[in-house]
Amino acid sequence: MSKTDPGNYFEDFRLGQVIVHATPRTITAGDVALYTALYGPRFALFSSDVFARDCGLETAPVDPLVAFHVVFGKTVPDISLNAVANLGYAEGRFLAPVHVGDTLSARSEVIGLKENANGKTGVVYVRTTGVNQRGVAVLSYVRWVMVRKRDPAAKVEASSVPQLADAVAAGDLTPPPGLDFKRYDFAHAGAPHAYEDYAIGEKIDHVDGMVVEEAEAQMATRLWQNTAKVHFNQFERAKDPSGRRLVYGGVVISTAKALSFNGLQNTGLILAINGGRHVSPYFAGGTVFAWSQVLDKAELSPTVGALRLRLVATVDRPCADFPDKDEAGAYAPGVILDFDHWAAVPKRG
Amino acid sequence: MSKTDPGNYFEDFRLGQVIVHATPRTITAGDVALYTALYGPRFALFSSDVFARDCGLETAPVDPLVAFHVVFGKTVPDISLNAVANLGYAEGRFLAPVHVGDTLSARSEVIGLKENANGKTGVVYVRTTGVNQRGVAVLSYVRWVMVRKRDPAAKVEASSVPQLADAVAAGDLTPPPGLDFKRYDFAHAGAPHAYEDYAIGEKIDHVDGMVVEEAEAQMATRLWQNTAKVHFNQFERAKDPSGRRLVYGGVVISTAKALSFNGLQNTGLILAINGGRHVSPYFAGGTVFAWSQVLDKAELSPTVGALRLRLVATVDRPCADFPDKDEAGAYAPGVILDFDHWAAVPKRG
Amino acid sequence: MSKTDPGNYFEDFRLGQVIVHATPRTITAGDVALYTALYGPRFALFSSDVFARDCGLETAPVDPLVAFHVVFGKTVPDISLNAVANLGYAEGRFLAPVHVGDTLSARSEVIGLKENANGKTGVVYVRTTGVNQRGVAVLSYVRWVMVRKRDPAAKVEASSVPQLADAVAAGDLTPPPGLDFKRYDFAHAGAPHAYEDYAIGEKIDHVDGMVVEEAEAQMATRLWQNTAKVHFNQFERAKDPSGRRLVYGGVVISTAKALSFNGLQNTGLILAINGGRHVSPYFAGGTVFAWSQVLDKAELSPTVGALRLRLVATVDRPCADFPDKDEAGAYAPGVILDFDHWAAVPKRG
Repeated sequence: MSKTDPGNYFEDFRLGQVIVHATPRTITAGDVALYTALYGPRFALFSSDVFARDCGLETAPVDPLVAFHVVFGKTVPDISLNAVANLGYAEGRFLAPVHVGDTLSARSEVIGLKENANGKTGVVYVRTTGVNQRGVAVLSYVRWVMVRKRDPAAKVEASSVPQLADAVAAGDLTPPPGLDFKRYDFAHAGAPHAYEDYAIGEKIDHVDGMVVEEAEAQMATRLWQNTAKVHFNQFERAKDPSGRRLVYGGVVISTAKALSFNGLQNTGLILAINGGRHVSPYFAGGTVFAWSQVLDKAELSPTVGALRLRLVATVDRPCADFPDKDEAGAYAPGVILDFDHWAAVPKRG
Repeated sequence: MSKTDPGNYFEDFRLGQVIVHATPRTITAGDVALYTALYGPRFALFSSDVFARDCGLETAPVDPLVAFHVVFGKTVPDISLNAVANLGYAEGRFLAPVHVGDTLSARSEVIGLKENANGKTGVVYVRTTGVNQRGVAVLSYVRWVMVRKRDPAAKVEASSVPQLADAVAAGDLTPPPGLDFKRYDFAHAGAPHAYEDYAIGEKIDHVDGMVVEEAEAQMATRLWQNTAKVHFNQFERAKDPSGRRLVYGGVVISTAKALSFNGLQNTGLILAINGGRHVSPYFAGGTVFAWSQVLDKAELSPTVGALRLRLVATVDRPCADFPDKDEAGAYAPGVILDFDHWAAVPKRG
Repeated sequence: MSKTDPGNYFEDFRLGQVIVHATPRTITAGDVALYTALYGPRFALFSSDVFARDCGLETAPVDPLVAFHVVFGKTVPDISLNAVANLGYAEGRFLAPVHVGDTLSARSEVIGLKENANGKTGVVYVRTTGVNQRGVAVLSYVRWVMVRKRDPAAKVEASSVPQLADAVAAGDLTPPPGLDFKRYDFAHAGAPHAYEDYAIGEKIDHVDGMVVEEAEAQMATRLWQNTAKVHFNQFERAKDPSGRRLVYGGVVISTAKALSFNGLQNTGLILAINGGRHVSPYFAGGTVFAWSQVLDKAELSPTVGALRLRLVATVDRPCADFPDKDEAGAYAPGVILDFDHWAAVPKRG
């Protein structure tokens, strides 16, 4: 038996199969500093222990996207090493806050399989759960990817596509225990805008643009122990029509979320990922821009509200005119990400 | 009201106005490691808890330039988002040491305003103070920047230019409480040179050269949550005659200070910034060189002295012949920084 | 006397001379996070405190290569600032585990000197020891480098070349006190392969390829406070036939070791460096590949075994056919590293 891991091919997956992913990871202050250096987030809740205590937490929690990247990275060798494309996310819920010192591990259950008509690939649906050192689930999400078959002639189970919710219900959102925005310091947070100031349908251009360099993309990907070959192996990528390494899609999500500070300064704390699509690949060196739309609102407590936000990112394309998809679902040129999530926001009370 | 922050224009500032800056920041061991990785400093006091204890401190303090970058970064969205140029620094004093775990926040007072004759821009003078979680000021400095007017026709207050000291007086220097160089370990520090060995007027070529890559410059800038567009938005910068992103001036300061280890091995602890000027912009990829001159000396305690040092940095220009400004004040080609500061140094006793 | 350190030239070294190196260094969680971001290692023992406790350790130890880089970096200004080439390593032993919070310092003893026939250079052999804050040696290794003479006419001591062991004897390996793989979690470690599954002579292609960018190479080198000019001074390197900065050889070692996870998932803990040779320089941008061969096996305890591994790295050259040296000792094109080490591995018991 070869000791080198070839990854799983489509015919290797079984419905109901549970995969324990490798390399549990203790989150450190070093990871948090690198997250700041790589993406430039400015949300006060993750930046200051003092600010976090004023919000009812013991110390600054780790940005939920850090937990997402750590858990996602662990799944790559088992789920998407032979993937053609990462197709989407759904039903992502952040279930418990993560702090420096917590150790995360991950497992996935195969919840759907559908062979493509060409017989060469199929779509694998997994529900992945990240668990901390006390066995508490900290996040859970569904992802589906198109995976190559090793052998086009291989027999494959009858197809089964899971029913997935369009969005996490507001009633299922789980803000960190103790979270209370009564003493929220709007001046230190950077803007006075509260829950009450955002209207459903409102669009916000985040104005700023940010380049990600190749070295930054690689460091961000290695940090999460994500091993997908397309991000690192230039020798092999030279044979691709693009000739370029692909940037890990999570880099685009985190960069766009950091850019969204300008206009959504008080919505850093992501509570759920309703859906996400990497509309086009991003290559290092392009300038990322972003805009958001408020899709929905919900009250979670007397001081905490939630906004359902659609965050759209583009490359080399400012967003003053909110580039979007047309009625047929085709995206405007330059759009690279469409990311639907819930985030906590202080109520003015 | 738009929720996107357009930054302040010259006519938005008022004399005496106090601005509380966003995003308090807890300094971590991750920030310190990144500082080392990005600039390469080797001063033992910041590198080793054991060395720091032998100098009378509880643990290794954070390099004062880290505190400076953190505080400076916070001011950018409010003070210099619409700046044409960062003109200078003065009266910078490091008032209390910063350790890992401290949370810094920043506020600025507008202490001077002077419209330029063209009516399109003006100079804003601010005194910025960084404060820790106990409300103790850890540093204070004056900065002046040239800022665009939103509306050239806007009326502007009568001009007021503050009187600024040429240098911080030696009597106003505040080394960390407890600092005592009696047991200073010169071998571990890397050189035997003490206060007594440096003569006023002495020039030192630091010999080594160091490239800063674009990715490094961006990471260094994001780490300090400095959002100035010129550092990140290549799409917009492509329209500039340079076609390039500008590197944050603080990167040049920290790189030059790190290079100065070679010849000034025992002067890492900056106590004051007397003045600083970014003579020319620095673009990533150039090799930075540096030289220093001893401008003054002062005894602070039986074991601690201070050197007033002028640190000059160049790009693609070795400094064996100490490139300088001429009598008319014009700098030699290649000079990018002229940075006048006080630093602590052990006395041989 | 100039205060700028010119480094030592060949005629400056004396047999038996002991050099205390500058800049003791407290290892932090930030260093560990950067190590992960720069190389992408996935060995569970260094990644998870929980996993490490299950292996009998209090917390996750620092990867021994971190300790090696820290100690190596300190020696550069004294030993190899004027080196023409880093010729080899031998008798490297990791003597005690290093944890976050430990402070390492380094000293070297000159154990061999041999002038070259051309009279312009000579080979210096040093045994370097890294010591923690309790005075306990954590690692020791021999390195030899070719160093320029300042003055070709300088008289030099009679030559003395030390006898060096081909490999560290299995009986001299010192795994961390308490290390016990009885509860080793193979699922979380990423592969089921135990001591019993590896055969002497077995070759493993690690398949994956990894680019190191210039910014990454520089950050990795600065992080260890390694100042060798060839890594940073592009202005000077432009005069070299390559026109390029050289990447620090330790970057190649750590990158190759991280790649070796794919096939050697349970052998992360290096116990000894038997020998190492940087066969060719590596320049940033090339894709690194690696393969390994099992040279020897040894039982250290009822649950802990050791594998003697030869790790060969190439650039832009996949390793499915195990590119090697021929009988005359000439390496196949593309080979850049040949690194012989002992690593701990769990026994199935």
